[in-house]
Amino acid sequence: MKEDEADDSQKGINKASKGGIIYGDYLQLDKVVKAQVLQSELKGNKIHDEHLFIVTHQAYELWFKQILWELDSVREIFISGHVRDERNMLKVNTRIHRIVMIFRLLVDQFSVLETMTALDFYDFREYLSPASGFQSLQFRLLENKIGVPDNLRVPYNRRHYRDNFKEHESEMLLSSEKEPCLLKLVEKWLERTPGLEGDGFNFWKKLEANIFEGVCLEKKKIVKMPDSEEKEEMMEELTKQKELFTSLFDIKRHEHLLSKGERRISYKALQGALMIYFYREEPRFQVPFQLLSNLMDIDTLMTKWRYNHVCMVHRMIGSKAGTGGSSGYHYLRSTVSDRYKVFVDLFNLATFLIPRHWVPKLDPSEHTFLFTAEYCDSSYCSSEDSD
Amino acid sequence: MKEDEADDSQKGINKASKGGIIYGDYLQLDKVVKAQVLQSELKGNKIHDEHLFIVTHQAYELWFKQILWELDSVREIFISGHVRDERNMLKVNTRIHRIVMIFRLLVDQFSVLETMTALDFYDFREYLSPASGFQSLQFRLLENKIGVPDNLRVPYNRRHYRDNFKEHESEMLLSSEKEPCLLKLVEKWLERTPGLEGDGFNFWKKLEANIFEGVCLEKKKIVKMPDSEEKEEMMEELTKQKELFTSLFDIKRHEHLLSKGERRISYKALQGALMIYFYREEPRFQVPFQLLSNLMDIDTLMTKWRYNHVCMVHRMIGSKAGTGGSSGYHYLRSTVSDRYKVFVDLFNLATFLIPRHWVPKLDPSEHTFLFTAEYCDSSYCSSEDSD
Amino acid sequence: MKEDEADDSQKGINKASKGGIIYGDYLQLDKVVKAQVLQSELKGNKIHDEHLFIVTHQAYELWFKQILWELDSVREIFISGHVRDERNMLKVNTRIHRIVMIFRLLVDQFSVLETMTALDFYDFREYLSPASGFQSLQFRLLENKIGVPDNLRVPYNRRHYRDNFKEHESEMLLSSEKEPCLLKLVEKWLERTPGLEGDGFNFWKKLEANIFEGVCLEKKKIVKMPDSEEKEEMMEELTKQKELFTSLFDIKRHEHLLSKGERRISYKALQGALMIYFYREEPRFQVPFQLLSNLMDIDTLMTKWRYNHVCMVHRMIGSKAGTGGSSGYHYLRSTVSDRYKVFVDLFNLATFLIPRHWVPKLDPSEHTFLFTAEYCDSSYCSSEDSD
Amino acid sequence: MKEDEADDSQKGINKASKGGIIYGDYLQLDKVVKAQVLQSELKGNKIHDEHLFIVTHQAYELWFKQILWELDSVREIFISGHVRDERNMLKVNTRIHRIVMIFRLLVDQFSVLETMTALDFYDFREYLSPASGFQSLQFRLLENKIGVPDNLRVPYNRRHYRDNFKEHESEMLLSSEKEPCLLKLVEKWLERTPGLEGDGFNFWKKLEANIFEGVCLEKKKIVKMPDSEEKEEMMEELTKQKELFTSLFDIKRHEHLLSKGERRISYKALQGALMIYFYREEPRFQVPFQLLSNLMDIDTLMTKWRYNHVCMVHRMIGSKAGTGGSSGYHYLRSTVSDRYKVFVDLFNLATFLIPRHWVPKLDPSEHTFLFTAEYCDSSYCSSEDSD
Repeated sequence: MKEDEADDSQKGINKASKGGIIYGDYLQLDKVVKAQVLQSELKGNKIHDEHLFIVTHQAYELWFKQILWELDSVREIFISGHVRDERNMLKVNTRIHRIVMIFRLLVDQFSVLETMTALDFYDFREYLSPASGFQSLQFRLLENKIGVPDNLRVPYNRRHYRDNFKEHESEMLLSSEKEPCLLKLVEKWLERTPGLEGDGFNFWKKLEANIFEGVCLEKKKIVKMPDSEEKEEMMEELTKQKELFTSLFDIKRHEHLLSKGERRISYKALQGALMIYFYREEPRFQVPFQLLSNLMDIDTLMTKWRYNHVCMVHRMIGSKAGTGGSSGYHYLRSTVSDRYKVFVDLFNLATFLIPRHWVPKLDPSEHTFLFTAEYCDSSYCSSEDSD
Repeated sequence: MKEDEADDSQKGINKASKGGIIYGDYLQLDKVVKAQVLQSELKGNKIHDEHLFIVTHQAYELWFKQILWELDSVREIFISGHVRDERNMLKVNTRIHRIVMIFRLLVDQFSVLETMTALDFYDFREYLSPASGFQSLQFRLLENKIGVPDNLRVPYNRRHYRDNFKEHESEMLLSSEKEPCLLKLVEKWLERTPGLEGDGFNFWKKLEANIFEGVCLEKKKIVKMPDSEEKEEMMEELTKQKELFTSLFDIKRHEHLLSKGERRISYKALQGALMIYFYREEPRFQVPFQLLSNLMDIDTLMTKWRYNHVCMVHRMIGSKAGTGGSSGYHYLRSTVSDRYKVFVDLFNLATFLIPRHWVPKLDPSEHTFLFTAEYCDSSYCSSEDSD
Repeated sequence: MKEDEADDSQKGINKASKGGIIYGDYLQLDKVVKAQVLQSELKGNKIHDEHLFIVTHQAYELWFKQILWELDSVREIFISGHVRDERNMLKVNTRIHRIVMIFRLLVDQFSVLETMTALDFYDFREYLSPASGFQSLQFRLLENKIGVPDNLRVPYNRRHYRDNFKEHESEMLLSSEKEPCLLKLVEKWLERTPGLEGDGFNFWKKLEANIFEGVCLEKKKIVKMPDSEEKEEMMEELTKQKELFTSLFDIKRHEHLLSKGERRISYKALQGALMIYFYREEPRFQVPFQLLSNLMDIDTLMTKWRYNHVCMVHRMIGSKAGTGGSSGYHYLRSTVSDRYKVFVDLFNLATFLIPRHWVPKLDPSEHTFLFTAEYCDSSYCSSEDSD
Repeated sequence: MKEDEADDSQKGINKASKGGIIYGDYLQLDKVVKAQVLQSELKGNKIHDEHLFIVTHQAYELWFKQILWELDSVREIFISGHVRDERNMLKVNTRIHRIVMIFRLLVDQFSVLETMTALDFYDFREYLSPASGFQSLQFRLLENKIGVPDNLRVPYNRRHYRDNFKEHESEMLLSSEKEPCLLKLVEKWLERTPGLEGDGFNFWKKLEANIFEGVCLEKKKIVKMPDSEEKEEMMEELTKQKELFTSLFDIKRHEHLLSKGERRISYKALQGALMIYFYREEPRFQVPFQLLSNLMDIDTLMTKWRYNHVCMVHRMIGSKAGTGGSSGYHYLRSTVSDRYKVFVDLFNLATFLIPRHWVPKLDPSEHTFLFTAEYCDSSYCSSEDSD
């Protein structure tokens, strides 16, 4: 090519770019929108709909990448201790909320793939074998980093989930299991909730006292009522409630539930979460409360995503095995259970709500601590992103 | 690496793949999820949110690729004449509907990018200059292939839109302008609507007769009414209606509106569309009617996409210039207009609806032709995808 | 009120209405937006969020009413036999599709109620007892009219579901169980699929022959291969496939599955559905095929609605009993199962797909019948709505 | 009815209700789901789709009621001064966010009404005249209470908007115009942003100093560069930027823009908003910052709602007049403009962003004030809802 031709070939873009970067190069579109190779075409029987199948999955993986990006940054803030500077709570919350919004999109995204019928899929699914969504490295990393524990995973084709991956991927997975997951980081953070200190406000002890006093008063009221079916029922109800609360303050039971995987966070963390629940309107707890809500949103949306996935698979392949040889539909159904809900404790705390007047009152000085955060001079806020 | 080590490194995956293809390779994830390079990081000031910006735009481009894939395949069916085999209508409709579903997702997708505030964006936008969404080749191709005409485009930075692209891209754009766009192909197809033939059912002449007979009867009824304000108003209304219908049957006015860009399809095609509207319940017209609805959906969603884009830009940069130096917000606003509605005629036909009993009756033999399609032995259906 | 005052009080509106109807009266807004009475307020402790709770449920009920309206009209078209006039298929399909779109909205609608936290709900939930969503008459009618059978319902509080309703409601429910449900009507319609006739095209026999010929050829190919692990696996796979197809043509097995509730439609109807699947591109089957897709959409969306409901309940009340005394969360979870999927057979047909070249060929004359519908002079189309 | 029959008729429900309230009565479903009267049916020509039209509009009105409920409660918190107790910020934010979520749903809700075609609508629209969505009292109240000012409204049929309403409705509208709207309340709240005090931190003066120092340094850097096209452009750009910032600190220009309706909040409030933007990560400003974001969300969604409405109207009636005699499409289009964006100033502040190091530093003592809120003993928090 002669020099002036080269100049010519860049004519348009030079006017536009003035030496800076242009859109297509910035986004590396030569990679992204040229990575659609149809197996059916390679095998001499090009099937139109395979393109949709590829693009949809690539879009999922792009978003998984983004979720991992947010998740890693949030975990880093927790791990580094920067979360103690409350200025970082906005960042944490915004990023967790972003994950929520992405999952919301991913749930909706099934509606696009559902424009492909089972019959269209049948035309090319044989070419994909044994590739399977189960082999999505990013999704497994995501689960590990949020906090799906290895021992609660449903077995897949009677093989450990890591054995479906290449060696270096398997190592990444193993290492992600060993790093502190979001659940564990949030647990540590909850354990530090101000107000839990035994030699300070001592929330848990005050709460226990208030609750049993409340239950006791309630009982007295009922006892005074004339005998009736209603009275009996109320008494029965109260007894059940009392048992429930007794169980809440029974640390041994907590340890037992932990060991069975029915609870996931420490007893202290549970107390912190309940404290944030009850005092959520205190300025210092407003953003932490939002964080807990957002964490439940992630759980809920991941579980909805799983369920939408199940629905689509049922439609595409009936109850037969998936492309990777898995039992497909039935395997996926089994993952839509509370075993895979990481923050299940936050949901279950709804079982232990109490009337507002049972909540221990903050006296003025106690109240204050909720309003104040120590001054923190770290230059972290502005520098975090550039490290 | 020694040979047995190589074996080892593939250990996991060999069990899974049995020599077939695996998920990550199939989707070329080494390209797709490794194409996120932050300009801010390159320039020594890594900004967390730039990653979201990149991923979001890549996801848009992925879906644009899919839309082009569907659009090209539909255009090919029309161009090749295969659309005359009515078996292909399901395919056409399904694919157009898929584009609708993708656009629906793309409209929702803004909610993810909107988790980034103007302040977060400000931190890295200087690094992007002069890259701009205006430089999205695929989006311009999309517009051209659907049928946004060059002469109705809003000028951008006082420069022809193609001059913002690299030479070979500019050529692709020019060539896409010359290929038959969806609008023109649909126009040709509408012109062939059975029932329009002057020596056959002659829908247009029958319709004209019925309408003016109907208007005439209406007038007689009103004339007989005692004088009142209401009577006057009804008469006024009827006069307006008559003028409206007169304009419908005025081919010169149609040509005039065409020349101004206020109508986009031929007079004959307009007749075909109205015929499909009125006889939409006839088995032969049910799927064509759905197609027209889907085409309006695309238009509506593209325009909603543009509008959501405008809203986001307003939020991100206020009313200042965009990253590419465009007047940003104001340019984009100007594209949210009926000039960019390709199938605007289909919407405006709603102006010419009439009572069901004015619609020309099909007599039994005429009725039949709507039920019958000639037998077509082409092996097209099964082979189209594999050519 | 003096006469001129009355005139005055209508001043504005007279100018607007000119004696016709006005917006608020048309919509009976005096009823609709004045029907929000907070129990908490009645009981002297007005809780802000109860208003949201009421409005959300009223919105659900409004939409259930609309779904019933569409469902009843579709059932009426089937019952009256008008479905045999193929012109009515557009109507049927449009209305079923509308139900799909409504359910899609209803699934999203949970995001609004989810802005209420468990703690906000706790503040007023005691006042609601024992009202419970389980008592939604319209939802139960909806289930019955679509085709959830009484004997597959999960028991609720160990009591028959109808026993939770007032006498006349219970009667409405009983009567809705006795009327032909959508499932049964679709079944009858599928049984009449042209091409099933034993003395005609005889689809089922041709299909059986083709499939076993196909399997046989496949077997021969495999037998010729040199011995290998792969060969063994392929043979195993083929054997499984053969068993699967053998089961498809085994009417006794079908009857057995029917009796267990694992299949829901007759053997003939199943054949019709598969025929529509395979010949979906034939003009006459395009709209029927869309109908089957829409029916699956309804099922999928109802099940997603149920699942979203479960998620919300988990969040609101943990795993304790619901407001109506039900076991809440656990009861609801049990309804998110294939037992409640009415058109489960349509999904499971995906298990019996075959390569395109195994599908029996239509010869020209057979082909024709798919293109032709008898002329039907009923004035039904235009009069249906006005009866 | 004999007594035992009465007992019988309540049989089912007695078991369920045990004397409490039941679902249908609680929700007043006898009103809500019995308020669908088809005008077409009254006029002897029942049109199926009118039911959808009614239900959709009723659902809109239900949600408008809920939005008004939230809006009034938020305005009340501001008016009563309770907002000064920062504990109420969570409440304010949650409720504003709820309005956002409702509007999100309402935008999606059009997809249901869009299942009705222009042709279906034509069949009954004559019966509705002159009822028109323009007559929605609640929507006008909503606009007034958020802060759409009377003088910026687009005229409709050359008549004042209140003249389309009944006398008592017109009075409600007038009174809603006189009450403090959300915009004005937020303005007052922004004016009190801590840090604006001239004798304290004096944010505005510090900001002005920093910005012009920054611009000056920038200029020096450019001046030192060797002459080039790039240098010229950078200098031009800097000059523009300087003008922009000069305008920001020009109170007279602000007053001028205010008088033209291009700005809507006071100069002091603008300063407060910018302060919250820049210090959003300070614990005390995190929730206020979220509030500003949510307010922009409301604006954006209302404008999207308007735009979706426009799209639907275009589809339903083309460019002819609406059912109420308005110029329909064109009127509605004119309301999709920045004139109707209430919080337009918050968007336009994006024009005035600056590099992080230009933002005035908080010194430790100044920092502290952002962490502290005075103790507030009001029992408001717990009693607000029950007043």
